[in-house]
Amino acid sequence: CSSSTPITATLFPGDGIGPEIAESVKKVFTTAGVPIDWEEHYVGTEIDPRTQSFLTWESLESVRRNKVGLKGPMATPIGKGHRSLNLTLRKELNLYANVRPCYSLPGYKTRYDDVNLITIRENTEGEYSGLEHQVVRGVVESLKIITRQASLRVAEYAFHYAKTHGRERVSAIHKANIMQKTDGLFLKCCREVAEKYPEITYEEVVIDNCCMMLVKNPALFDVLVMPNLYGDIISDLCAGLVGGLGLTPSCNIGEDGVALAEAVHGSAPDIAGKNLANPTALLLSGVMMLRHLKLNEQAEQIHSAIINTIAEGKYRTADLGGSSTTTEFTKAICDHL
Amino acid sequence: CSSSTPITATLFPGDGIGPEIAESVKKVFTTAGVPIDWEEHYVGTEIDPRTQSFLTWESLESVRRNKVGLKGPMATPIGKGHRSLNLTLRKELNLYANVRPCYSLPGYKTRYDDVNLITIRENTEGEYSGLEHQVVRGVVESLKIITRQASLRVAEYAFHYAKTHGRERVSAIHKANIMQKTDGLFLKCCREVAEKYPEITYEEVVIDNCCMMLVKNPALFDVLVMPNLYGDIISDLCAGLVGGLGLTPSCNIGEDGVALAEAVHGSAPDIAGKNLANPTALLLSGVMMLRHLKLNEQAEQIHSAIINTIAEGKYRTADLGGSSTTTEFTKAICDHL
Ligand SMILES: CC(C)[C@H](C(=O)O)[C@@H](O)C(=O)O
Ligand SMILES: CC(C)[C@H](C(=O)O)[C@@H](O)C(=O)O
Repeated sequence: CSSSTPITATLFPGDGIGPEIAESVKKVFTTAGVPIDWEEHYVGTEIDPRTQSFLTWESLESVRRNKVGLKGPMATPIGKGHRSLNLTLRKELNLYANVRPCYSLPGYKTRYDDVNLITIRENTEGEYSGLEHQVVRGVVESLKIITRQASLRVAEYAFHYAKTHGRERVSAIHKANIMQKTDGLFLKCCREVAEKYPEITYEEVVIDNCCMMLVKNPALFDVLVMPNLYGDIISDLCAGLVGGLGLTPSCNIGEDGVALAEAVHGSAPDIAGKNLANPTALLLSGVMMLRHLKLNEQAEQIHSAIINTIAEGKYRTADLGGSSTTTEFTKAICDHL
Repeated sequence: CSSSTPITATLFPGDGIGPEIAESVKKVFTTAGVPIDWEEHYVGTEIDPRTQSFLTWESLESVRRNKVGLKGPMATPIGKGHRSLNLTLRKELNLYANVRPCYSLPGYKTRYDDVNLITIRENTEGEYSGLEHQVVRGVVESLKIITRQASLRVAEYAFHYAKTHGRERVSAIHKANIMQKTDGLFLKCCREVAEKYPEITYEEVVIDNCCMMLVKNPALFDVLVMPNLYGDIISDLCAGLVGGLGLTPSCNIGEDGVALAEAVHGSAPDIAGKNLANPTALLLSGVMMLRHLKLNEQAEQIHSAIINTIAEGKYRTADLGGSSTTTEFTKAICDHL
C-alpha cells in the first residue's frame, strides 16, 4: 500500500487549536507511511466575494478537485455580511450527509461503556434553510424546508452505509406527530428506501423518545438517520455519552463523490498555541478519510494506535484527565504504529 | 390544614393505565387527609364540535372553573378531523409553560445520581404552530413561530420560579446561531427578563451543546427555559437520566391562574387493567398540584412517602425491576404516611 502513488488531499487546519492538531495528523500519517500529499488551505483574512465568506475560492476549488479533504475547527469571525464558514462549506460543496460514528473508547471511562452507533444527519436543509422573517412586530417565523430529493438522498446513503458496514438496523428520527408534512415527508422517503433493503431492519423513533432511550440504553441503537437539526442535537448528545466532541470523528459526504472529514469540536482559543490540545477527533476523522480512500490497512493501523494509546492511559491530554502535551500524545501514538 | 374546606380539582384519569394510577392518587390523597374533592372527567367517545377533539367541552369548563387539575395519559385516537388531546388542552386552556422537575431518586440507581434540575418549556407556539404546507411537489415547509409575548411570558415564569424556589441559575436553551430571528427573539426576551432578576445568574446555551453537557454532567444545570420543541426534547432526555417518564412529574401553567399537573408518559395499553402500572409520575404530579395549592404540609408528607417507598426497594413495580402490583405499591406508600 505504501508504494502506491500519492493521493492529493485538501487540509484545512482551521484556527485556534486547529494548526496544532493538524500537525499531529500529518506526523502520524507520515509515520504510518500514508501515501497522501496535503494541499493546505487556511481561512482567509478578508471576505472572498465569490464565496461570500472568509473561505477562499481556491480552498473550495481544492476540495472540488481532490474530492477528499480533512478539516479542523473554524470559528466564524463575528460581523455582518458574510456566511458561517461551516455552513458555506456544506452549501458550496453540497455536503449532504454528515456521518458521525460514536463508540465507547476502551479504557476511557464514562458513564457508558456500550455505545456503538452511527448518526447520519441531513446536512443541507430543514431548519438550516436560512429563511426567516418578521411577520409583524414581535412575531417572527423560521421556515423548515424538507424536500423529497434531499430526504431520499440521505436515506439512501444511510441504508447503503448500514449494508456496507455490517450494520443491522436503521432508525429514522422524527417528530412527525407534530410536523406531519415536513417530518412526514422525511419518513415517507426513508420508508421508500427501506423497501429496497429488506435485510436491514427499519424503525421510526420520535426524537423526544429517542433522546430518552439514548441516555437510558444507547446499545438499543445502530444507525440513526435524521433531518438537519435533530442530527445536530443527537450527534452531540451521543458524543457526550462517550466523552465529548474531542473524541468523536465525522465525515461529510457530497454529491459529486466529495468526502470532507471533519473534527466538529470548537477551536478552543483559550488553549490555542499552548501544545495542550487533544488531536483525537481530527486523527479519527483522518482515519475515516483513509477508509473512504480505501486505504484500509493504514486506517486500521492508525486507528489501533490511537485507541491503544488512550486505553493505556499513560499519555493523555488534559481534557482526558492527563498531563501530556499534544506532541507527547502524538509521539505515543507514533510509537504504537 | 386537614380542617380547611375542600378544594375542588378536576381529574382526567385518561386512558390505558390512566384509571389505575388515578385510583392510586385518590387512595394516597385520601389517606393523607388531603382536602380535595375530585371532579372526574373522561375523554369522550365522539368528537365534540366545540373542542374539535374527543375532549368534552364540559371537561375543559371544569378545569377553567376549578383552575386546578391533574391529568393522566391520553392516547389520541387515530383518524382525521380532530386534534390531539394533549395539544387541544394546551391551546384551549392556554397552558403556556410546562414545568418539569427532574431529580435523582435516592435508592433508585441509574447512571446518574446528581440530577436536580427544572425544565420550563414554552408550550403554545414554536414548531407546534401547526402551520405547514407543500410549496411545490416534493417540497414542504413548516413554520416555526416565536412571539415576543409568549417568550416574555415563559421567561418571566422561569425567573419567578427560580427566585421563589431557591434556584440560582436560569439557562436559556436555543439555536440562535442558526435561527437568528426566531431563537434570537426568544433570547432577547429572556435577557430583558433576566435584567429584572439580578440575583439569578443568567446564561445562554446552544441546544446541541446543552444535550452534550446534560449527558456528561447534568449537575451543571439548574433551571432551563426554552422554546417548545427544545423543551419537548430536553425534558425527555432529562427524564431518561433519572429513570424515565414513569418517574418524573410535570405541571402546566395557564394564563388565568390555571395549573394542570400531568404525568407525561404514555398510556401503556399493553399492561392496562393488569394492576402493573407504576403510579409514581402521576403521584408526583399530584404533589406538584398540592404545592401549587399551597397545601405544602401534605405535599411534603406524600412526597416523602413516595420517595421512601422507592428508596426502600421492597415494593416496586415491574418497570423499576420489582414485582409489586400497583395496589401493593400504593399501599406501601400509604403505610409510610
Ligand atoms: C457551528 C454550528 C453552525 C454547527 C451546526 O449547527 O451545524 C455545529 O453545531 C455543527 O454541528 O457542526
Ligand atoms: C404526544 C406529543 C404530541 C407531546 C409533545 O410533543 O408535546 C409529548 O411528547 C409531550 O411531551 O407531551
